[in-house]
Amino acid sequence: MRPFRAPEEVIRRLAVYLRIISRLDELDNPYVSSKELAEMAGVSPAQVRKDLATFGEFGKQGVGYDIRFLKDELKSILNANCCVNMALIGVGELGMALGRYNLRRREQEKNYPFNLLAAFDVDPSKVGKLIDQKLRIFSMEELDEIISRLGIVLAMITVPAGAAQEVVDRCTAAGVKGILNFAPVTLKVPPGVRLHHADMTLELQQLAYYL
Amino acid sequence: MRPFRAPEEVIRRLAVYLRIISRLDELDNPYVSSKELAEMAGVSPAQVRKDLATFGEFGKQGVGYDIRFLKDELKSILNANCCVNMALIGVGELGMALGRYNLRRREQEKNYPFNLLAAFDVDPSKVGKLIDQKLRIFSMEELDEIISRLGIVLAMITVPAGAAQEVVDRCTAAGVKGILNFAPVTLKVPPGVRLHHADMTLELQQLAYYL
Repeated sequence: MRPFRAPEEVIRRLAVYLRIISRLDELDNPYVSSKELAEMAGVSPAQVRKDLATFGEFGKQGVGYDIRFLKDELKSILNANCCVNMALIGVGELGMALGRYNLRRREQEKNYPFNLLAAFDVDPSKVGKLIDQKLRIFSMEELDEIISRLGIVLAMITVPAGAAQEVVDRCTAAGVKGILNFAPVTLKVPPGVRLHHADMTLELQQLAYYL
Repeated sequence: MRPFRAPEEVIRRLAVYLRIISRLDELDNPYVSSKELAEMAGVSPAQVRKDLATFGEFGKQGVGYDIRFLKDELKSILNANCCVNMALIGVGELGMALGRYNLRRREQEKNYPFNLLAAFDVDPSKVGKLIDQKLRIFSMEELDEIISRLGIVLAMITVPAGAAQEVVDRCTAAGVKGILNFAPVTLKVPPGVRLHHADMTLELQQLAYYL
């Protein structure tokens, strides 16, 4: 049970801290100061202390944060301890690249929490094939059944813009609770479902503003 | 000259509004209300009015926003009128997919402002080849010269984590002002350079928090 929902920016920074902390742990560092962590995360030390204080007392005065302990705590806060079952919808160029990337991360990193279990595509010539000899591509007709049977809760959507809303509707009806959308389109999800956009053009447009 | 720098969240939403407005313009709609725009963007009508009011008087009471006018204004605010020269650093699986995606967007959408001019990779077997018969892959040795010669100001970085900081340093030294980083690593940029992360795992981790 979580006592409250932290703001999105805090969660984003916690995910960055976890990535840094995990790397420090691999290098066998026992402690990290808020100043060091802040520098690596590109934020202020006060920000680090404030973000972490939201969730409890993790640091020791004069010593810093116990890396192993902080890592476990961050993982538990971010739900990164358990296995999150995931699907990839749309195996075009981008979908294929994302699928392979995920399979590789999962192979290389112990405890990578995202478990890509199924891919889907409309193209009959792709259906039944395996991505990297591991990830099976199913037809769109099988989507609803496979998602609920495998307990898939996250979906990465890389279908064309025009097909995205229908895919999202079917995914959420079948039990998906979180969607990472790569289609360049605004989408609606029912209450209780979380939608994030990973739209390169939006990112580029924001960067261009600051040029 | 811009009077001020708007907060990041506002810029993000303006980019979303521009995408919606551009689509409505293609469909020959003359006006859109803040309520309709809000619904399509997934925010409140008050938020739309507030965001746009930051930049001027765009709406007419009882009529809504003139779509053609608002599109031009949003483009000018977001620097999306001009051509932004861009490079892709790292032509692995993800880099290749992103490169092709960009070339295609630029081909299909008149006024797509991002002009991908050069790709770079360390692999000698890739150097000299063309992506989609258009985008040349240069060696990393040529990076500095090509970036300054072609006036490249944006870079998409899809190199392995360990190589990313050096690539960023060289890009910014050669004149790059905005970086979209896909490498799963925290990076530093000099003052005046803007860095955005497009890290799928960070996005997934945030989604998992809300599960």
